[in-house]
Amino acid sequence: METAATLLQPLLEGRPRAVARAISWMENGHPGARELMALVWPHLGRATVVGITGSPGAGKSTLTDQLARTLLAEGKKVGILAVDPTSPFSGGAILGDRIRMGRIATEPGIFIRSMATRGALGGLARATQDAIDLLDGAGWDVVIVETVGVGQDEVDVVSCVQTCCVVLVPGMGDEIQAIKAGIMEVADIFVINKADRDGVEKVEQEIEGMKALSCVRDWDPPAMRTVAGDGTGVGELLGKIREHGAWLKAHGGFEAKARERARLRFRSLLAEESARAAMERAGTGRVAGLIQAIADRTLDPYAAVAEVLAIR
Amino acid sequence: METAATLLQPLLEGRPRAVARAISWMENGHPGARELMALVWPHLGRATVVGITGSPGAGKSTLTDQLARTLLAEGKKVGILAVDPTSPFSGGAILGDRIRMGRIATEPGIFIRSMATRGALGGLARATQDAIDLLDGAGWDVVIVETVGVGQDEVDVVSCVQTCCVVLVPGMGDEIQAIKAGIMEVADIFVINKADRDGVEKVEQEIEGMKALSCVRDWDPPAMRTVAGDGTGVGELLGKIREHGAWLKAHGGFEAKARERARLRFRSLLAEESARAAMERAGTGRVAGLIQAIADRTLDPYAAVAEVLAIR
Repeated sequence: METAATLLQPLLEGRPRAVARAISWMENGHPGARELMALVWPHLGRATVVGITGSPGAGKSTLTDQLARTLLAEGKKVGILAVDPTSPFSGGAILGDRIRMGRIATEPGIFIRSMATRGALGGLARATQDAIDLLDGAGWDVVIVETVGVGQDEVDVVSCVQTCCVVLVPGMGDEIQAIKAGIMEVADIFVINKADRDGVEKVEQEIEGMKALSCVRDWDPPAMRTVAGDGTGVGELLGKIREHGAWLKAHGGFEAKARERARLRFRSLLAEESARAAMERAGTGRVAGLIQAIADRTLDPYAAVAEVLAIR
Repeated sequence: METAATLLQPLLEGRPRAVARAISWMENGHPGARELMALVWPHLGRATVVGITGSPGAGKSTLTDQLARTLLAEGKKVGILAVDPTSPFSGGAILGDRIRMGRIATEPGIFIRSMATRGALGGLARATQDAIDLLDGAGWDVVIVETVGVGQDEVDVVSCVQTCCVVLVPGMGDEIQAIKAGIMEVADIFVINKADRDGVEKVEQEIEGMKALSCVRDWDPPAMRTVAGDGTGVGELLGKIREHGAWLKAHGGFEAKARERARLRFRSLLAEESARAAMERAGTGRVAGLIQAIADRTLDPYAAVAEVLAIR
């Protein structure tokens, strides 16, 4: 039987199947998952982690693929994690994988994975962080985390990568503006994709306006123009991502991001594990009874949870 | 000083300021929050709860306002909860509120609130459920929960309302399709908004195609056409929402939705409260030390969480 110890070696050698298996272990709560993470942990810290977020339809996947191709041409190994919060329902992740398969070839050095929450306790952010670490430990040079930037989990994930790119497109409406305001603080670089369309200057002005409303930061997030479809501006974007990395290194930003990421990992994992432990102590029958009592309105949820937490 | 007992009376009388204060109590974890919910709990179960979800730019807010206006004209009290997952960052909720203020007048009988997660432990779904219950207890006839349908929390929230409307628009791209696949299972009614645009038939065909891929359900979600901007189709949509409510009543669907909602409430609250309890037992100094050790890579997050959970 495969154990954490036997999976470790092929993982550290960078075998894609071992990486895929290890990610599945973490996603599914395999009995060896914790030991595996403990074994991989000392090997981390080399990968560059880039976040790509933005609205649906902004061209994030195409941009991600173009960045990956450019890095691949430099001889880099690139991991792509597509955070897909819709997946617990029918077809989300599967559909996503199928779309990707047509877009980027299964070239050596490229590792693609759609992340999905299957558990009930919101393990998406946690599982994605685990996958980043596993790719890092397995020797991938760059990990790109691509996500629709609107859910809390997704914002959490991209908020503590090394460089977070927020992708916008010309000609979107008011609601997009609201989203832009929300992810303003996590953006290290704004990418105006589909920049061959009308309205690029308007988006640039809006970004400036948003920046004026937001707190002043040491790093002033620039706005880059790209046309991901034909690769225009992708090299320049990569250059800016590296410039931001160098800036972080020079200004203690790596340590701050690492602490932020550690805090997120600790908190999301604690929420998941402490709830699991509490449910185990209570037992499934009692939990089911409490849920039924809430549904029947004979017990309020706060009282039900207090009852479970009182079990020692 | 205001207590749960003194806030209860104006709340049950439907005073908007009491509702607003009670929601803030639940959001901020006010000391009286649990007692208040326990006191309100026996008064619940009368409100109709409708979810409006879909992609950014689909016109959800305009549609929500039109539904609210129509219900208001019938003499109904309507609560609107705008779930805004971007709000922990700058301006999200504030911007959202400002936009709304211009859109729907502060008419008596209308209660509008942007929901925001401020806590670190993902309390958005929980706080929104609390707000639904408080509006229900305060005598609001209909509560409309409006959210961008892509984050896990948001999908959780709309998945257990009485009737979930998924809003689509003609002429959107592939990524929208993926989202549609994801929320397929939670849709009770599809709304094709901006139906005066080209491509309505194409969206209708895509919905049919998606339905063919998904599991068969007893209620076959219909596709309704609206133009929220001028109110076209809004009355018909409201009729369909009521038809779905009647269908649920006749087929035991209310009980199933109530159980699903109770399960979500219990689990999200348990995750939040059990993590809080564990952190209190450990103490802030020790938690900070563990987070620093994770950041320094001397301890992996699973081991750190196990250490905290071992404290009794």
